[in-house]
Amino acid sequence: MPATDLPDRAVVDLLGLVAFGELLAFERMAVDARLAPDLRRRAALGEMAAAEIGNYRRLADRLAALGVLPDDAMAPYVEPLQAYHDSTEPRDWAEAVTKAYVGDAITDDFIREIAAALAEPDRQLVLDVLHDSSYADFAVAEIRAAVEADPKVAGRLSMWARRLVGEALSQAGRVAAAERGALTALVAQSGRVDVPGLFGRLTAAHAARMAAAGLNN
Amino acid sequence: MPATDLPDRAVVDLLGLVAFGELLAFERMAVDARLAPDLRRRAALGEMAAAEIGNYRRLADRLAALGVLPDDAMAPYVEPLQAYHDSTEPRDWAEAVTKAYVGDAITDDFIREIAAALAEPDRQLVLDVLHDSSYADFAVAEIRAAVEADPKVAGRLSMWARRLVGEALSQAGRVAAAERGALTALVAQSGRVDVPGLFGRLTAAHAARMAAAGLNN
Repeated sequence: MPATDLPDRAVVDLLGLVAFGELLAFERMAVDARLAPDLRRRAALGEMAAAEIGNYRRLADRLAALGVLPDDAMAPYVEPLQAYHDSTEPRDWAEAVTKAYVGDAITDDFIREIAAALAEPDRQLVLDVLHDSSYADFAVAEIRAAVEADPKVAGRLSMWARRLVGEALSQAGRVAAAERGALTALVAQSGRVDVPGLFGRLTAAHAARMAAAGLNN
Repeated sequence: MPATDLPDRAVVDLLGLVAFGELLAFERMAVDARLAPDLRRRAALGEMAAAEIGNYRRLADRLAALGVLPDDAMAPYVEPLQAYHDSTEPRDWAEAVTKAYVGDAITDDFIREIAAALAEPDRQLVLDVLHDSSYADFAVAEIRAAVEADPKVAGRLSMWARRLVGEALSQAGRVAAAERGALTALVAQSGRVDVPGLFGRLTAAHAARMAAAGLNN
């Protein structure tokens, strides 16, 4: 099935999922910024958060242009995404930046893969909301500094990252259930996403990021 | 004294004050957004918050260009501004938008008056961080809708607005103490700010805004 014939429902589901993910990431990072040890770092996480709400606006505008209320498109994902964040509240600054680093990157990898199944302009739109690498650089530097200040932190953050991935996977199952099959069908039918290899690529990229930050996978 | 001869200390004090005000307004509005009754409104307050952190960045960059660490310039204001927000935590959505409406507008009025004492490029910079009137329009519409849904809310929000102004004035005294006199001297010496009339203009503008939102002053 050519990309231009893909069902609108799937596009709406994906835009709604990504939009609510951005909105929630914004809120949580803004809250987590208060864990920062100084105002410079606090503002840096706040700016990372602000980029997410800018992306939210683009996605919500696109949903509106498709004749869909953004709230309706996002509604199925409120519970699983909220549950992910509720179950992964960082206790300190190092956990907060690790969460931003791990969560942003896995989300980006997932979106980049799924985007292949979309027609334009939606493909470019979702690729545009991927994160600037400067945010990852900031997070890696903060994680490395925390480990340097106290080497014991490496083990704790490694465990924390595993928990983040575990919780994300657990909620991903509920997200898949929430999207009512259209998105899964889009991806399967597009023939442009290598679904069997997807999981392997996401976890390999995650492992590489852990190593880059000096953590164990 | 011409504006170009004004002491740098005062400019740094003002930029630090406005910068920290923006950073904190960002965080509090992002947190308060969770009180929204739906995702559309939640995102709207989030976007208002994000505009503040964008302004923060411009002010912090200017401080850095002046050879000052933004954290140092902001440090004297952390306690009084934090105390203002701690003492005015909104309990529901109507209180949250009222706080954003009242707080943003009084801050803007104050900055607009003080800007007259600054030389360029700082004058234009602080004028640039004033809020877009679309935010006030949004807040007014939300307040009016809350009052329409339950007329008793008007009295409660009117009292809430008075409390916001009272707490702001109370902390303004501590801000004045924190800025070590340079800013006050700048304003007094510039001859461009009508200090005796300042308080009267701020309160008159506040009263007009309360009326526009259907509240009593």
